Amino acid sequence: MSSYSSSARFDEARRVAIFGGTHGNEMSGVTLVNLWVKNGSEIQRKMVDTKPFITNPRAVEKCTRYVDTDLNRRALFFPTTDGDLPYEVQRAQEINRIFGPKGSPEAYDVIFDLHNTTSNMGCTLILESSKDYFNLQMMNYIKVTDIRLKSLLKASIQLVECCFTSVNIVLCDWFIAGLEVGPQPQGVLRSNIFEAMRVILKHALDFIELFNEGRTGVEFPTCTVEVFRVLERIDYPRDANGNIIAMVHPNLQDGDWEPLNPGDPMFLTFDGKTLHYQGSGTIYPTFINEAAYYEKQQAFVTTRRETLVASAIRKKID
Amino acid sequence: MSSYSSSARFDEARRVAIFGGTHGNEMSGVTLVNLWVKNGSEIQRKMVDTKPFITNPRAVEKCTRYVDTDLNRRALFFPTTDGDLPYEVQRAQEINRIFGPKGSPEAYDVIFDLHNTTSNMGCTLILESSKDYFNLQMMNYIKVTDIRLKSLLKASIQLVECCFTSVNIVLCDWFIAGLEVGPQPQGVLRSNIFEAMRVILKHALDFIELFNEGRTGVEFPTCTVEVFRVLERIDYPRDANGNIIAMVHPNLQDGDWEPLNPGDPMFLTFDGKTLHYQGSGTIYPTFINEAAYYEKQQAFVTTRRETLVASAIRKKID
Repeated sequence: MSSYSSSARFDEARRVAIFGGTHGNEMSGVTLVNLWVKNGSEIQRKMVDTKPFITNPRAVEKCTRYVDTDLNRRALFFPTTDGDLPYEVQRAQEINRIFGPKGSPEAYDVIFDLHNTTSNMGCTLILESSKDYFNLQMMNYIKVTDIRLKSLLKASIQLVECCFTSVNIVLCDWFIAGLEVGPQPQGVLRSNIFEAMRVILKHALDFIELFNEGRTGVEFPTCTVEVFRVLERIDYPRDANGNIIAMVHPNLQDGDWEPLNPGDPMFLTFDGKTLHYQGSGTIYPTFINEAAYYEKQQAFVTTRRETLVASAIRKKID
Repeated sequence: MSSYSSSARFDEARRVAIFGGTHGNEMSGVTLVNLWVKNGSEIQRKMVDTKPFITNPRAVEKCTRYVDTDLNRRALFFPTTDGDLPYEVQRAQEINRIFGPKGSPEAYDVIFDLHNTTSNMGCTLILESSKDYFNLQMMNYIKVTDIRLKSLLKASIQLVECCFTSVNIVLCDWFIAGLEVGPQPQGVLRSNIFEAMRVILKHALDFIELFNEGRTGVEFPTCTVEVFRVLERIDYPRDANGNIIAMVHPNLQDGDWEPLNPGDPMFLTFDGKTLHYQGSGTIYPTFINEAAYYEKQQAFVTTRRETLVASAIRKKID
């Protein structure tokens, strides 16, 4: 039995954007968004305006992560008074004008930012806050209704709460969903990864349609969602000059979301020594050996497994 | 029983070069060569001068395939009279001066060019000619003596004869070995791929040492070697504007070296249609969905399986 009074209330989600090509060599999002720009029938839902959008067209053209600076992480922190701004900073400002600005009546309600990773992460939604009940409910809906994702990726959806600053944060009012799907090399389009991303978007848009439906919308009751909370970033072992001296250990490679216990192998030095995890408790590494994170001095991130309770949600009634 | 008279005779292989970073984002070769530049004891053999060398340092610095043009394929065909040559063309000329020029007494005897691929190809040696008995014998030696490669890659070494023009072709007298190991995303170093490449080089250098040994060297008797002869390059299906409209089919993805028979699935269009192989006989695709070949309009290459007889070889005696 649902209770009107206990549900968290959100405005209808009438304007939805789907960003591809925030990193121009992550081909699932680039390809899907380009397809939907030509023919958007697949992403249309009743009473929802869905806009597919290539966020970094110059990087897409060059099939590179970025041209001047990472649109996803750093672009937003450049001083805006400089005369000659990096391309991605200009572009972030332009995107903000089109889809934001945050807090304005014109701002988009939901933005999906589509990414691929070279890590063996399956499907991952990156949220900014464990209080983001809309996205938590959406993920729960996708997990419950999905029948195809498991066979496509042999893995279920994972949900990560972390401190990464996504390009989305300044662009929409509340609902931010960074979607990572992998493993897929940069510049490559693999059919299973492409289909997995497509299926997630289908379910997510169905969820939004249901949420909006009729005068009162559908109530999504309280649910529990397993999440991985990001703890810290682990660099590769280095020598005194800063050169990498070890690789991710074969036991850890591709083991995203698997427990890493004290004493487990973590790195293998180039001269054959195994370095073990020295922490005091079990952690769950992810983004293991992601290509784009070498320049960020990051071999993987550690996470802790938690179960969150997502409050029931329902749309606001005028 | 070996016969002196029937053996093909080759000069001793006294000068050996190992090239890494011909493509700056193929990390196994980059890492191994950088290690060996610092400490070459692992690659030293009796009476052999082995030189590890980063061929495209600017691309390595940027972790990109190339800066101006592909060193591996096109650099050698630019007109040399231009005042402002692309970086890789200048670099190819410089490399040719150091390790060549072809036919000169100063030219290196053997050059290994280390590459990675995003395709699921295992270990592959790319030769220019089926008459290259030295390399065929070397591959046979590696296959026979190897005990670790199969466990590292769950695949045996493959040997490809093809028409690719490698940077090596102008650089050495006869012995050209382009080594491809994968799957590995660009910009990533995976320990199993790294170790596989290292093991192949170890065996290859052992072979050279044996070949040179003593006054007469060791004779390597006639052997048979399975090779894959490259037939043609297959592009992705495209629309009238040249845009890709399909992906490698999941049944073909990662199936490098597996037979593709008439009627087998080959591509999957973005709207879900399967395109089948329409040829008249069995082929063996490889370089399937290689990241760097999208710009070359190539989804995979087809090959035919053949068994070659490699003549016995022995070093020339003065």
